Amino acid sequence: MAIPKRMKFSLATLLVQAVFIILYVIFVDYEDAADPTKPKAASPIPTYYPMYQDIHVMIFVGFGFLYTFLQRYGYSGAGYNILLGAVAVQWTLIIRALFFHELASGGRVQMSLTELITGDFNAATVLISFGALIGKTGPLQLLVMVILEVVFANLNEYIGTEHLKVSDVGGSMFIHAFGAYFGLAVSRVLYKEPHESSSNLRAGYLSDIFALIGTIFLWCFWPSFNGGLASEDGRLRAVINTVASLVACVVVTMAISSLLSRRGNFEISHLQNASLAGGVAVGTCANMPIKPWGAMVLGTIAALVSTLGYKYGSDFLAAKMKVHDPAGINNLHGMPGVLAAIAGAAMAALATKDNFGDSLYDIFPARTPSIINGTVYAEDRTAMEQGGYQIAALVTTMTVAIVGGLLTGLVMRLPIWDAPEENDLYNDRDYWDISEHGFPSDPTGLQATSSNSTG
Amino acid sequence: MAIPKRMKFSLATLLVQAVFIILYVIFVDYEDAADPTKPKAASPIPTYYPMYQDIHVMIFVGFGFLYTFLQRYGYSGAGYNILLGAVAVQWTLIIRALFFHELASGGRVQMSLTELITGDFNAATVLISFGALIGKTGPLQLLVMVILEVVFANLNEYIGTEHLKVSDVGGSMFIHAFGAYFGLAVSRVLYKEPHESSSNLRAGYLSDIFALIGTIFLWCFWPSFNGGLASEDGRLRAVINTVASLVACVVVTMAISSLLSRRGNFEISHLQNASLAGGVAVGTCANMPIKPWGAMVLGTIAALVSTLGYKYGSDFLAAKMKVHDPAGINNLHGMPGVLAAIAGAAMAALATKDNFGDSLYDIFPARTPSIINGTVYAEDRTAMEQGGYQIAALVTTMTVAIVGGLLTGLVMRLPIWDAPEENDLYNDRDYWDISEHGFPSDPTGLQATSSNSTG
Amino acid sequence: MAIPKRMKFSLATLLVQAVFIILYVIFVDYEDAADPTKPKAASPIPTYYPMYQDIHVMIFVGFGFLYTFLQRYGYSGAGYNILLGAVAVQWTLIIRALFFHELASGGRVQMSLTELITGDFNAATVLISFGALIGKTGPLQLLVMVILEVVFANLNEYIGTEHLKVSDVGGSMFIHAFGAYFGLAVSRVLYKEPHESSSNLRAGYLSDIFALIGTIFLWCFWPSFNGGLASEDGRLRAVINTVASLVACVVVTMAISSLLSRRGNFEISHLQNASLAGGVAVGTCANMPIKPWGAMVLGTIAALVSTLGYKYGSDFLAAKMKVHDPAGINNLHGMPGVLAAIAGAAMAALATKDNFGDSLYDIFPARTPSIINGTVYAEDRTAMEQGGYQIAALVTTMTVAIVGGLLTGLVMRLPIWDAPEENDLYNDRDYWDISEHGFPSDPTGLQATSSNSTG
Repeated sequence: MAIPKRMKFSLATLLVQAVFIILYVIFVDYEDAADPTKPKAASPIPTYYPMYQDIHVMIFVGFGFLYTFLQRYGYSGAGYNILLGAVAVQWTLIIRALFFHELASGGRVQMSLTELITGDFNAATVLISFGALIGKTGPLQLLVMVILEVVFANLNEYIGTEHLKVSDVGGSMFIHAFGAYFGLAVSRVLYKEPHESSSNLRAGYLSDIFALIGTIFLWCFWPSFNGGLASEDGRLRAVINTVASLVACVVVTMAISSLLSRRGNFEISHLQNASLAGGVAVGTCANMPIKPWGAMVLGTIAALVSTLGYKYGSDFLAAKMKVHDPAGINNLHGMPGVLAAIAGAAMAALATKDNFGDSLYDIFPARTPSIINGTVYAEDRTAMEQGGYQIAALVTTMTVAIVGGLLTGLVMRLPIWDAPEENDLYNDRDYWDISEHGFPSDPTGLQATSSNSTG
Repeated sequence: MAIPKRMKFSLATLLVQAVFIILYVIFVDYEDAADPTKPKAASPIPTYYPMYQDIHVMIFVGFGFLYTFLQRYGYSGAGYNILLGAVAVQWTLIIRALFFHELASGGRVQMSLTELITGDFNAATVLISFGALIGKTGPLQLLVMVILEVVFANLNEYIGTEHLKVSDVGGSMFIHAFGAYFGLAVSRVLYKEPHESSSNLRAGYLSDIFALIGTIFLWCFWPSFNGGLASEDGRLRAVINTVASLVACVVVTMAISSLLSRRGNFEISHLQNASLAGGVAVGTCANMPIKPWGAMVLGTIAALVSTLGYKYGSDFLAAKMKVHDPAGINNLHGMPGVLAAIAGAAMAALATKDNFGDSLYDIFPARTPSIINGTVYAEDRTAMEQGGYQIAALVTTMTVAIVGGLLTGLVMRLPIWDAPEENDLYNDRDYWDISEHGFPSDPTGLQATSSNSTG
Repeated sequence: MAIPKRMKFSLATLLVQAVFIILYVIFVDYEDAADPTKPKAASPIPTYYPMYQDIHVMIFVGFGFLYTFLQRYGYSGAGYNILLGAVAVQWTLIIRALFFHELASGGRVQMSLTELITGDFNAATVLISFGALIGKTGPLQLLVMVILEVVFANLNEYIGTEHLKVSDVGGSMFIHAFGAYFGLAVSRVLYKEPHESSSNLRAGYLSDIFALIGTIFLWCFWPSFNGGLASEDGRLRAVINTVASLVACVVVTMAISSLLSRRGNFEISHLQNASLAGGVAVGTCANMPIKPWGAMVLGTIAALVSTLGYKYGSDFLAAKMKVHDPAGINNLHGMPGVLAAIAGAAMAALATKDNFGDSLYDIFPARTPSIINGTVYAEDRTAMEQGGYQIAALVTTMTVAIVGGLLTGLVMRLPIWDAPEENDLYNDRDYWDISEHGFPSDPTGLQATSSNSTG
């Protein structure tokens, strides 16, 4: 007997959660400072908790409401966001242990505030990819994606940080570019010609204001994202640089948005998205001494690239490359992520003890000179070499993202995962009970009679 | 001459506020660290302020927007929430002084950051109760409730912490279970058969998205609620355990929500509410070393219990016990609060120096061994005894909540408090000036002409 | 050839941003703690960052959503808010350097966390003024206003703090009163008789709930605004006093709102705005030992004044003085700011070593006794003198604000800045592409066909 169609999601999800719990039983402890049987240690709360909570709001309120922009997809946008994010946070801890902490060799994993931040970062990666799949994928397909994407993302970050030894403090390569190109590759595999139900693919006046809630919280808290895991004075620079980049970015976004319109009008989707591109673009070099004006220049370029992307790029991708990108993640995370990687490589290639001071070895550990028998030898890597490795990490990121996304897309395309019906795309109605009033301004909704009295 | 109906609310409220100010003149000082005439003391801001602000957002944004889920009750949901919360914060300081600081014997009260957190906690208690009374009570009735409920709540907490000496760091017994069963008892007393105006008791598509704002902020900041007043390494455990419980809870909530639906659909009210039950369920033992997987198990059970409650429990309560619970507080705060109490008692019964380390006496002070003439005597309480006291506190909580709620309900039922008219239930229109466009999708509203130009 | 109308905004904005970047290249460095070439310094992040982020949310989420209250002006309300705020933050650093850091004599400016807080404070000043101009000004006019207003505001603050040496920790004079009377002066110059398109000047049920998002975040985080730049124990007092003032304020606002209504109903605009007036009223003396009850009294008076203002004052201003104030900034920021100034002056006049302790010279540096050749001389200023200077700062503030606002209004009235058409006031449609569904409950909007698929 076959499992009824929609019960599959429930059973698969419960299975995943059960596996998580078993893995946590076997492998996961508290970090030492939280373990009462270990010697007392300094609490990480003063250092990490305030920024962690800012990041938490970005992931769940920020992305969640940013994805309510479609008029009939608000429940799904915010709802799948929190579901996928919660799966990603749990799964990340296990997967990271495999790659970074040699779990395989018998070690155990420590759940710590910094691991929770990393969990939220991986949730961001997944939720960026979700932006390319909004309205065209069912929850079971998305669950499959989280499970696979977290593996690919950590493989990529492992190569980048452990082997290429690059710096990417705000994750513009490992999170933003990766999440974007992974999601676009999945979207390519799942591409279908527009169906008439694509008429649901439209924002509404009020749903666009809901989306602004997401935008503005992301905009406000982005300094915590780029600075959350930065160390020493790099943390303060990450904050200042990110603010500098974002204030320039939103100003230029409004200017370009108007410039690209025949009537000189603003487009709300530009404000919602492109104004955040500066946070991405400054992410790789946020902790480097790029000077406030350098951050403002990056924010300016990001606004330009991103707004142009929303105006022309998305249509081009869909028409010429069969890559449909409803939330425009290529414009908000993809291209600005590449820009960030290039800026980071350029800074790395220019970094000296003179301009980076003691931060040099904190930011680029591979450049630390070897000391053998008391003799200080030349730096292990030159500035130019470090710059080359930074570019190599971008290339790796693009490769792992696209290959991983294509493979994941092939898995997601299997019919067993219950993709949404073609005549119910971009519509909450397919997977949610819609309250009896139906959608706003939708006269047919007024006739429905189902009850939802428990709020 | 009688006081006109609606002027009563104004005069009563102004009287209450005047009494508060007089009581504060007589009894309330700054805490020492804020008193410039006292010797300098370390500021509590670094330790308590960030979590206080998170909690503040939970109470006023979180509960406030969670209670905007009804299509025609958004002003009241968020508006009464901030009104009741602000009364509760002020009143708590005075009432706590009576119970905890022996104000009666001439002492004075100190207004401190930790007292402000406690004020917000008491506001939460009251606002949980409000969830059972949404749409069926007028502001004057609710004002009466706050005044009485804060007294009963602190009586209960006084018995629990000072006499039974139990641990309940996140207030799952003293705040969540108490607030829920107090509110349900009030709702029982005020019960009326459904009137035709109960057709207003329905959510709308957009009001449900407004409610998600509340949900997601509560979900993000709950670690601060459970950890806000925790001490030492217990604070870090409270954060980690709460995150672990909530990520599992939201995943299981979505799975169960779909499983309970004939079409396999999600219900937005489950996501809005049941996904938070894990924060309640882990509240009593949040600072105990329950391991991350233990927290995930609690979150899983809470999601199951809470979602079942929303699906079947609320209708059962209404039909069989004449307890109407529009926001489903029994499902979000009541049953998960009982679950938390049981989990806390079980942990207490298993707590040893071996598994709790030095935290044992921090969390359960009654277990501290007596030292007499240099000889260390056995712990004052055994683990099993402490577990028994924890259960006793749950029983006390249920008793004080239900008895207190019934008495308060009887007072609130007096006709002098101006309950809403039966034909205007669940409707802002009864107590608010509705702007000239009226409710959305409400054609009759378009004709109104009153002006609201000052925004 | 003339520049096409709407391209002017883009070109002017890009020019402004380019000038900012050039000025930052020439003049702006990191603060020392962020400069890797300087000796290591203690990070300001633990002290300032959490409150900075609260303030950041107030400016961009708080003001932004507060200004979405008009039914057809949500994009502009939140959108111009972030645009103007981002310009103000960048411009403030430069202008402050001119006034406060003697940039003219060759010094350089340091971008620091405290300067970022000051940048947000200046953004608040500008955004308060914006409240009087909502719906009646185009983006280019507003850009002109930011550029000029930041200069006048810093001139005023320079006189107040450097010459009059007054205390105004929460900026109730320098930010709130200044921003309000500057904006009202501009509004006076731009005054036009109501046009039929003024029918757009109305709130809607849902837009009023969006505005409550702004209200509640402002209400929650206001303690960080008043305490952000306070020092020593004054910071803790600022937090406690602001909470005390605001809880009283919201209670009294609801009471007065109902009392002023014939039917005893609440007005949502009162809750949205007047409930915040207590944060303004306590701003000047927030760090002074006014006792919690003193703060509650200030909050009570502010609620009374502000609610009366919303009920009667705005109409009076418009009818008798031709000052139109759509968001009611006179009631939320103007009159409560004056109240704050008077309360601050009274406290200053009563301040002694006995009641202020060591805080006396921290709060009023001009009262520090001179020590010459080891002999301590009398305080440089008596309490009464300091009180007089505080009043002088209020007079200066009103003068600079009104004169500056009138001049700025004359510049903004020049036809080159493209004011909105009279038949498109209070309407996003004039400057924004409105999504194809048009405004909610607007049948004509359903016919539009433009595409907005990129979200």
